[in-house]
Amino acid sequence: MIGDIGERQLIQDFKSFIRPEGRVGPGDDAAVIGKDIVVTTDVVTFDRHLPAGMSYEQFGWYAAAVNFSDLAAMGARPIGFTAALALPPTLDSQAAYDIMSGMDQCAEFCGTGIVGGDTKNGPGLIAGTAIGTLDGRAPMLRSGATPGDVVAVTGPLGGPAAGFVAIDKGINCQEAKDTLYMPIPRVTEGIELAESGVVTSCIDLSDGLGTALNTICEASGVGIDIEFSFLPHEEYVRDISERSGVPLEKLLIGWGGEYELLFTADQNRLSKLYDAEIEFSIIGIVHEGDHPELIRDGNRSNITYGEY
Amino acid sequence: MIGDIGERQLIQDFKSFIRPEGRVGPGDDAAVIGKDIVVTTDVVTFDRHLPAGMSYEQFGWYAAAVNFSDLAAMGARPIGFTAALALPPTLDSQAAYDIMSGMDQCAEFCGTGIVGGDTKNGPGLIAGTAIGTLDGRAPMLRSGATPGDVVAVTGPLGGPAAGFVAIDKGINCQEAKDTLYMPIPRVTEGIELAESGVVTSCIDLSDGLGTALNTICEASGVGIDIEFSFLPHEEYVRDISERSGVPLEKLLIGWGGEYELLFTADQNRLSKLYDAEIEFSIIGIVHEGDHPELIRDGNRSNITYGEY
Repeated sequence: MIGDIGERQLIQDFKSFIRPEGRVGPGDDAAVIGKDIVVTTDVVTFDRHLPAGMSYEQFGWYAAAVNFSDLAAMGARPIGFTAALALPPTLDSQAAYDIMSGMDQCAEFCGTGIVGGDTKNGPGLIAGTAIGTLDGRAPMLRSGATPGDVVAVTGPLGGPAAGFVAIDKGINCQEAKDTLYMPIPRVTEGIELAESGVVTSCIDLSDGLGTALNTICEASGVGIDIEFSFLPHEEYVRDISERSGVPLEKLLIGWGGEYELLFTADQNRLSKLYDAEIEFSIIGIVHEGDHPELIRDGNRSNITYGEY
Repeated sequence: MIGDIGERQLIQDFKSFIRPEGRVGPGDDAAVIGKDIVVTTDVVTFDRHLPAGMSYEQFGWYAAAVNFSDLAAMGARPIGFTAALALPPTLDSQAAYDIMSGMDQCAEFCGTGIVGGDTKNGPGLIAGTAIGTLDGRAPMLRSGATPGDVVAVTGPLGGPAAGFVAIDKGINCQEAKDTLYMPIPRVTEGIELAESGVVTSCIDLSDGLGTALNTICEASGVGIDIEFSFLPHEEYVRDISERSGVPLEKLLIGWGGEYELLFTADQNRLSKLYDAEIEFSIIGIVHEGDHPELIRDGNRSNITYGEY
């Protein structure tokens, strides 16, 4: 039974069938097919991705955003979004409309629209597919990080994790919850990063910073040092950490559900990124090795894959 | 509740959000986006699309085939397939593997492969997305049929309907069941039809001939006469009709689940189609009007949308 072997095994099985039609196969955020087309599919469910307080409109936005984020990580410009909806027959019809409206708004935010879809009865599930084009850019992969590169993120970390903890512990902080409910796919940033020509690897943070760093190290065959004090975050993340007792490190590194981009870049040509006026924070450095480590108050520790 | 307004309303709601990013919007088998890219999404479920006797491998094939058929109807060449699987945790892991293998085989048959996917727990549902390219061809739409055109289909009708009836009535006919279990998407034929330049409209028969004819009439603003004796079918379809008491007309026109292409073409340039060596049967003619009619033994009757 699938239950026995776990979903991870199922995903491994599935990957064995995935073949590189074009230049990029499984293991990256999305697949490159044909000349310039990037495609990605992600499923979200009521069960796992509809936390307390999230509206159906936000759920729709979320279902689209997770897919556009995968395009962003490769530097693709979205040209279409399709969605298969499997919604419970008991669901309020306004709720169904709100979900579609949320998807539509997110697609529009990302410069495109819903171009097709299908609906069936089901448990509350959306399988979204985002299609993009590279417009001739080389796709950003997970495998190009090189010793000497800087490691950076496109925005503050830990917001969605703090939002989740706030809900769980009954802490009142709308700002944190909002980052959880409505993640912003970094599509513009992804295109600019790819366009710059100085980014050597990129991944989104949907599975958390710890998992993303390990993935880059494994795919690129490098080590990474992260300086804890460099990790950008809003003041409320620290505040929620203190009030909940959940360590700040856990919120910033060990959680998923956020959609900033993590990337590595040639440190001798960083001016290209500054010229592009992309906001980013340098958080570490790539070196020879095989795994990421955290440096905090001068002490080193291994950064592990997140549980998320 | 969705249950109250029905799935049709939900689909109508959904269509209101679908916008033409490129040249072709909702209402056709697939959407054309960007310069030359065609994309389509279809959901199949254990509940509705796994009849008695169908193997999991065939179910996987089917999940891919329904999508490739939509590409075929527009004349697109497949360049990738993604699938989101929501399978019950109680499912045998071999069954899950067989489903993936079936999708993979169908994708390979259609000249491409699985390029990405996602899996979650669920009720037994596959949301497949097929991506294709027109390679510069004009897409075949549902809206171009013109009075004087011939109406044709790419192959025999009624096989899957006969297969369904055979299962239901306990009639032994493996050939009929096989057409139900493993539909062949007419990808090569679709490309050739589009390439010929003489096809004025096209649609697949997934919702049955009756629905397809009504759809063409509505989208093109024409009437169509179908000659019953011209409808191609295997001998076993008539046999199963006689043994089951289900009228032959119902099996050939009123059922869905088959994947031949219905098309209209300029009758003065049919030589282009013969040159291309595509198999097809002419079944009727387009004329001024607004709906399809059946001529059987000289008597006329309206062809209605199928129940499927």
